Amino acid sequence: MGIHTFFASMNDLERIIRAPGKFKFEEHNVAAHSWKVSQYAMFFATLEEMNGASINWKSLYEKTINHDFAEVFIGDIKTPVKHSSPELKQMLATVEEKMMEKFIHREIPGEFQDIFFHRMKEGKDGTLEGRLLELADKLDQFYEAYAELKRGNTEPDFVQMYEIALKKILAMPLRTSVDYFRDVIVQDVIKEKTAVDVKSLTLRILENPENPAG
Amino acid sequence: MGIHTFFASMNDLERIIRAPGKFKFEEHNVAAHSWKVSQYAMFFATLEEMNGASINWKSLYEKTINHDFAEVFIGDIKTPVKHSSPELKQMLATVEEKMMEKFIHREIPGEFQDIFFHRMKEGKDGTLEGRLLELADKLDQFYEAYAELKRGNTEPDFVQMYEIALKKILAMPLRTSVDYFRDVIVQDVIKEKTAVDVKSLTLRILENPENPAG
Amino acid sequence: MGIHTFFASMNDLERIIRAPGKFKFEEHNVAAHSWKVSQYAMFFATLEEMNGASINWKSLYEKTINHDFAEVFIGDIKTPVKHSSPELKQMLATVEEKMMEKFIHREIPGEFQDIFFHRMKEGKDGTLEGRLLELADKLDQFYEAYAELKRGNTEPDFVQMYEIALKKILAMPLRTSVDYFRDVIVQDVIKEKTAVDVKSLTLRILENPENPAG
Amino acid sequence: MGIHTFFASMNDLERIIRAPGKFKFEEHNVAAHSWKVSQYAMFFATLEEMNGASINWKSLYEKTINHDFAEVFIGDIKTPVKHSSPELKQMLATVEEKMMEKFIHREIPGEFQDIFFHRMKEGKDGTLEGRLLELADKLDQFYEAYAELKRGNTEPDFVQMYEIALKKILAMPLRTSVDYFRDVIVQDVIKEKTAVDVKSLTLRILENPENPAG
Amino acid sequence: MGIHTFFASMNDLERIIRAPGKFKFEEHNVAAHSWKVSQYAMFFATLEEMNGASINWKSLYEKTINHDFAEVFIGDIKTPVKHSSPELKQMLATVEEKMMEKFIHREIPGEFQDIFFHRMKEGKDGTLEGRLLELADKLDQFYEAYAELKRGNTEPDFVQMYEIALKKILAMPLRTSVDYFRDVIVQDVIKEKTAVDVKSLTLRILENPENPAG
Amino acid sequence: MGIHTFFASMNDLERIIRAPGKFKFEEHNVAAHSWKVSQYAMFFATLEEMNGASINWKSLYEKTINHDFAEVFIGDIKTPVKHSSPELKQMLATVEEKMMEKFIHREIPGEFQDIFFHRMKEGKDGTLEGRLLELADKLDQFYEAYAELKRGNTEPDFVQMYEIALKKILAMPLRTSVDYFRDVIVQDVIKEKTAVDVKSLTLRILENPENPAG
Repeated sequence: MGIHTFFASMNDLERIIRAPGKFKFEEHNVAAHSWKVSQYAMFFATLEEMNGASINWKSLYEKTINHDFAEVFIGDIKTPVKHSSPELKQMLATVEEKMMEKFIHREIPGEFQDIFFHRMKEGKDGTLEGRLLELADKLDQFYEAYAELKRGNTEPDFVQMYEIALKKILAMPLRTSVDYFRDVIVQDVIKEKTAVDVKSLTLRILENPENPAG
Repeated sequence: MGIHTFFASMNDLERIIRAPGKFKFEEHNVAAHSWKVSQYAMFFATLEEMNGASINWKSLYEKTINHDFAEVFIGDIKTPVKHSSPELKQMLATVEEKMMEKFIHREIPGEFQDIFFHRMKEGKDGTLEGRLLELADKLDQFYEAYAELKRGNTEPDFVQMYEIALKKILAMPLRTSVDYFRDVIVQDVIKEKTAVDVKSLTLRILENPENPAG
Repeated sequence: MGIHTFFASMNDLERIIRAPGKFKFEEHNVAAHSWKVSQYAMFFATLEEMNGASINWKSLYEKTINHDFAEVFIGDIKTPVKHSSPELKQMLATVEEKMMEKFIHREIPGEFQDIFFHRMKEGKDGTLEGRLLELADKLDQFYEAYAELKRGNTEPDFVQMYEIALKKILAMPLRTSVDYFRDVIVQDVIKEKTAVDVKSLTLRILENPENPAG
Repeated sequence: MGIHTFFASMNDLERIIRAPGKFKFEEHNVAAHSWKVSQYAMFFATLEEMNGASINWKSLYEKTINHDFAEVFIGDIKTPVKHSSPELKQMLATVEEKMMEKFIHREIPGEFQDIFFHRMKEGKDGTLEGRLLELADKLDQFYEAYAELKRGNTEPDFVQMYEIALKKILAMPLRTSVDYFRDVIVQDVIKEKTAVDVKSLTLRILENPENPAG
Repeated sequence: MGIHTFFASMNDLERIIRAPGKFKFEEHNVAAHSWKVSQYAMFFATLEEMNGASINWKSLYEKTINHDFAEVFIGDIKTPVKHSSPELKQMLATVEEKMMEKFIHREIPGEFQDIFFHRMKEGKDGTLEGRLLELADKLDQFYEAYAELKRGNTEPDFVQMYEIALKKILAMPLRTSVDYFRDVIVQDVIKEKTAVDVKSLTLRILENPENPAG
Repeated sequence: MGIHTFFASMNDLERIIRAPGKFKFEEHNVAAHSWKVSQYAMFFATLEEMNGASINWKSLYEKTINHDFAEVFIGDIKTPVKHSSPELKQMLATVEEKMMEKFIHREIPGEFQDIFFHRMKEGKDGTLEGRLLELADKLDQFYEAYAELKRGNTEPDFVQMYEIALKKILAMPLRTSVDYFRDVIVQDVIKEKTAVDVKSLTLRILENPENPAG
């Protein structure tokens, strides 16, 4: 028991591969993903602040670096199941939460337990920081799928992942960030040379972002 | 929809790594594991038959090659969760089963659905073949853990995995097979040169196989 | 000496990579290949049985799970050599066979030697099960090559591998299976989005499957 | 030019391997390392705050997640060179800094350039947050070396890396954190079963942490 | 100290990956690269000799097999930096050279030091052998970039690497070799089926090889 | 047909892994091996020359860089087969040679064929250069096995590979080189810290190098 166990468990997240079982040209682990999410969030929070918002930076960064810690217990399995049924998604969330609790009770010394419970709980709430976390998390999904399409991965999974991420980002209640993403970042994205035709795919969604048919 | 989708999904099992997140010197995928399980079962069923048992070979082989197909949906996560709580284990079994059903309804042509439901259902029942599957599955866990200990993996996970697999095999209701395993195979195992002291660990369990403390 | 050595040698087949030396986006090991072959065979034998054939299931499964065991001795080298000359192919088959014999005499206890000799001998004979093994083995070659072409592998080796596998399957003396493969499975295959134009390649062969020029 | 280029460059850090050229049982990339450093810093800053310190959390997290971004330009080469000579170390720091400047001028839109210059500059200054970054960075070096020794890596590089990291941590001007590390964390570390005798190595350093001979 | 240390250090070059941090379908290590360079040089020197040149073969082979040994110290970082500024390139060359000197003084026994200094010094001088080394080194860069483009790598880095290598080869003061490369080898290269349109890219450069715009 | 095909085939040797199928902590490809062999040969030829021998350097380097080119056709399979029977070893040598011939006739332009036949033929003849090649080739086997033992690989294959390589080197008819190897290099080797007890193993062989029992 102890903080040493907590520190050592972080190494496990370097071995949890995102989107396991799918063919991909490049693998991403959950530790590196968490870092990228904190970087995206840093940028968009800066942008929101420059446009008048007030950011709780401590909360923002803790949400981003901790948001996938629970994957140490059951791995990165939520995406395929989520598309399958809401009940299954809920059941898995419960499993994950209970294992997190068990871990904190068993490994974290008493004086730190409250802080850990607070930090490790689901961060995607309605606060500005919760929304920025969700945007940043979706953005990494967008970039992971984009990189596969760019390199010629023809699996329908990655087209679908790209479309879902793009639509969800466009629908986020974060006007300044979403505008910048759509009007600046996406414009640079579609200028790149890609193996799969990402430009048409993207323009189709930008024109009609709420079309559920993809 | 169709058998092509089923065939293509087998490739996904080559990318599902067993015991994900744990440090190991060598990774094993679920497709290769399924093959090894069918080989272990072939040997022990032969042994049982030579000692008078009557084997349903068709059932035996179908149980072994199909027993982990459902991992294509949620990956190899049962082991750590199983050690955590029976409810969680049950919940995950339900998730897996429902996704299997969905897959068969969506992908398998009508005329083959009954056969697929029959073949893909949990094979570890009380029949001789069900018990041989369970023995073979545990034996692969035994060999995977053994190979890590032999090469010097000091993670407690693999010591625990070795102990649990060994005890479960010794307790299987398959006298001829278990005797041969304990009296012949294990004797060869403990003669090998290993980095972690597998011999002492093994002898301690052989002397007192039902000790729950390990 | 002993069954332990046999069991441990199966792990070696997880490290024998098919088509060694060729560039590929995804590697396949011989253990996983053997499992996939047993799955393809299970499906086509079911289909043949539904159409009136009588299957020796024990023989079928033993042929499929054992058919590449001898690669543990000299690796997966037959394909390139086979295309090179019949004498060399024959010489390598002899090397493989002699090493298999030596292994059984040295490692397998006397009471099991006859069974091992029987199971490990070349399974692609003229029986229905032997033909189903050959179909299933070619089908895995078809799918391995297909997956590379789909992802944009432009090496002529994989185009050639795809063509040869497809032609050999179409020429197999297994009418029901070949019809289902050509009329159902291949139709789904050519509907998929691929990087290399697999559809034209396939249609050209379907129209003129016996053209030796490819 | 643009934020898209900055976001895409983060992916490069997932391919920069730490301690390149050295044999190791497990590789770590710079992106995952940055995440672990932010986690260690979160813990020790919490501990310092519980003991009366005042933490600038925004600064702390930005220092940790950005501290190795410049490795995107020249890779992870500082450690071996640093042990070689102070001039070379200085020269490489200059190269890195100039390439960072060039990148910001070329890729980052004008309105964000000041913020990027501020965030990407060397973070290991004399502030409490700068010292926590240095502690956290050394701690990841400690854990990386420890994991190799634990698994039996006998390369002198990792013994040396472990010793240097341990000594530097013990000498950090952060009393509360260093005491907790030495009295709690290290005690748990030396209880673990390891292949190389880490316990003796550690106790020798704890007794005489300033001995330059190692 | 000793030749054993020198021999063991060669293993490190098997772990130094060329073009680190860039996405690529296939990685190449510096040891294998050195071998390929010696093969290219063998061919072109043969060609030059057949056309009347006089080759110092000992010098040629020693230049090629030793030309990247110094990368053992700072890794393969020159390419991106080289494109960045001549001063930085010079600074890194100095770092590399000093570390090489230090290594020879510390590890190589006195009686061999002069020979090692001579062999390990920069080989790309104005001699025929120095020019053949440079041609061969650029040719491997050409082939590495070509292989990525052929497989569909759309990163601009590899297009740029291909163009630069091609232009530099065409401008080498080695008439016989360059003519053969342009008139025979490149003609075979552009006949191959590739994912990215290498043929147009190549023909454009062949028509106007000195255009600095690429 | 052409030199382009020859150059491209070198890339295949980067994918041929030595000692395929055996568990190892680190893989080595045939291209990198060929480079290391040329380095070992360079050192020992220098030593022989310093002691009065006359070296044909062109021949030496061509023997070393070309000695395993034929593995492009059948892979690295000779070692296990060689230990199995002299006839099989001979049969495989014939297969390899015939495929080499075929390759040269088909791919190499007429004016270069004689040179290629000369260079690609078996180089381990009785000349000083042929013996230096054999020493260097065995030395790489020695170092590959040594590195595995040092890191704790307990597979008997690597103990056997180490013993055989050591004995063969000690028995080579190259007095100066063998003396230096035994009296200087091996003394440094056995000073290193290793996981498996290489020192005792080595001293036992040094005392009685001709004992066939290992």
